Amino acid sequence: MILKVIAYARNGHTDKFGIPRQSRDASPIETRIVFEPEYRVPEALRGIEGYSHLWLIWGFSENQSPETKLIAPLRQRTTNHQSPITWSPTVRPPRLGGNKRMGVFATRSPFRPNPLGLSSVRLLRIEDEDLIVSGADLLDGTPIYDIKPYLSFSDSHEDAKNGFAEETADYQLKVVWEATMETYLSTLPAHYQHIGSTSVAEWKHAVEYILSQDPRPGYQDDPEREYKLDYDGITVTFLVQNDTVIIKNIQKMQKDLHK
Amino acid sequence: MILKVIAYARNGHTDKFGIPRQSRDASPIETRIVFEPEYRVPEALRGIEGYSHLWLIWGFSENQSPETKLIAPLRQRTTNHQSPITWSPTVRPPRLGGNKRMGVFATRSPFRPNPLGLSSVRLLRIEDEDLIVSGADLLDGTPIYDIKPYLSFSDSHEDAKNGFAEETADYQLKVVWEATMETYLSTLPAHYQHIGSTSVAEWKHAVEYILSQDPRPGYQDDPEREYKLDYDGITVTFLVQNDTVIIKNIQKMQKDLHK
Repeated sequence: MILKVIAYARNGHTDKFGIPRQSRDASPIETRIVFEPEYRVPEALRGIEGYSHLWLIWGFSENQSPETKLIAPLRQRTTNHQSPITWSPTVRPPRLGGNKRMGVFATRSPFRPNPLGLSSVRLLRIEDEDLIVSGADLLDGTPIYDIKPYLSFSDSHEDAKNGFAEETADYQLKVVWEATMETYLSTLPAHYQHIGSTSVAEWKHAVEYILSQDPRPGYQDDPEREYKLDYDGITVTFLVQNDTVIIKNIQKMQKDLHK
Repeated sequence: MILKVIAYARNGHTDKFGIPRQSRDASPIETRIVFEPEYRVPEALRGIEGYSHLWLIWGFSENQSPETKLIAPLRQRTTNHQSPITWSPTVRPPRLGGNKRMGVFATRSPFRPNPLGLSSVRLLRIEDEDLIVSGADLLDGTPIYDIKPYLSFSDSHEDAKNGFAEETADYQLKVVWEATMETYLSTLPAHYQHIGSTSVAEWKHAVEYILSQDPRPGYQDDPEREYKLDYDGITVTFLVQNDTVIIKNIQKMQKDLHK
């Protein structure tokens, strides 16, 4: 089957680091789903406002060769999507510390025979012909192939057994600010703000949420190590000590994604 | 993106009529997922037995031109998959009686820009390198593109608002037998039994479940009208009167699907 891109996801996650490992209903992070011209038809959304949640089927577009990443315009980014992807029967889930192998079909790893992602998201509102959703675990610019309503009577299994993912599902870190960001935010160009946060409070809330989920690779636990999170045009530098994230610095992102 | 078929679904649903409209956890109907040679690798399933439910992402292969349907071998069936599919911004869901139009992204209709299906199924067991699942709403021979573990903490939204699908979710019919089937079942060729039911009791249980879900097109309610359900090599003739299905006759299926 040949899939056509029906829409692209736009949000503040311009870098893979910090993207939630799964979609989460509690996430405050908003993603705008922008339909491609052929599918940007108001009638195609008729009745969708009756649903609280939607499914997105999307492509792991970061599985690309480095040269085609980020600097290329969105459509160009996904054109050669398939070529560099290989599959391996086993993968090393970050949840297990990155050193234990599981079968690829027992994981949500991007490195699968068909690099499709699946996320349930909360439908917040419709703006123009865009869908605004929260809870998505998608990179900015991710191609979307299908959108379906979430049906609780067939899709919800509250007591499902979660295999190896079970034990770490509720792990959260505290977040402490040792940096102030007001001066940086006020200098941001307008186009960053339209794809992600619309206020300082919203940006701060989103960053706190991302960091509370512990974006570090699972096998790293060095209290002196500095990490950098890019979110919505701003780079956050932080440490993790015990169960606390300490934000040391914030600054305007160095690379310009939208040239 | 070009999708590769990783597996095919095998079950008793050799005809579209009678397939559940959505996957259902309560369904007793078993589906065997048979991997294609390249993906038939035991390591790829390592750890999957820890999960009670799986996601299947699959192709609506019945959206094909009639000539290529059913009589062709499985692989041939899906080769020209894409060509006859068109999309329309609105569809008429059977749930709404088939005469009200909803936006395609507010439905699970097969007639979508990318004809992908999504089903959560219960993992019953692994046999050889096949997965045996229940609750699938898939036709026999459906191509499968991805299998993922179901994660309750990201995928389950017990209180999701189900839009127009809400009100009819729990509707069920009673089933009454006016026909006996033992003589027919004993004459069935062995290959029918391996793809679906393994005993008379199992076949009967499956058929009762299918009929209780009311497989009639939503807009039909004629108590004199005879319907035919093909399941696992046997054709069941029935009427629906008030809230009761009356099974009038059973016989060996006329067409041979496996020639």
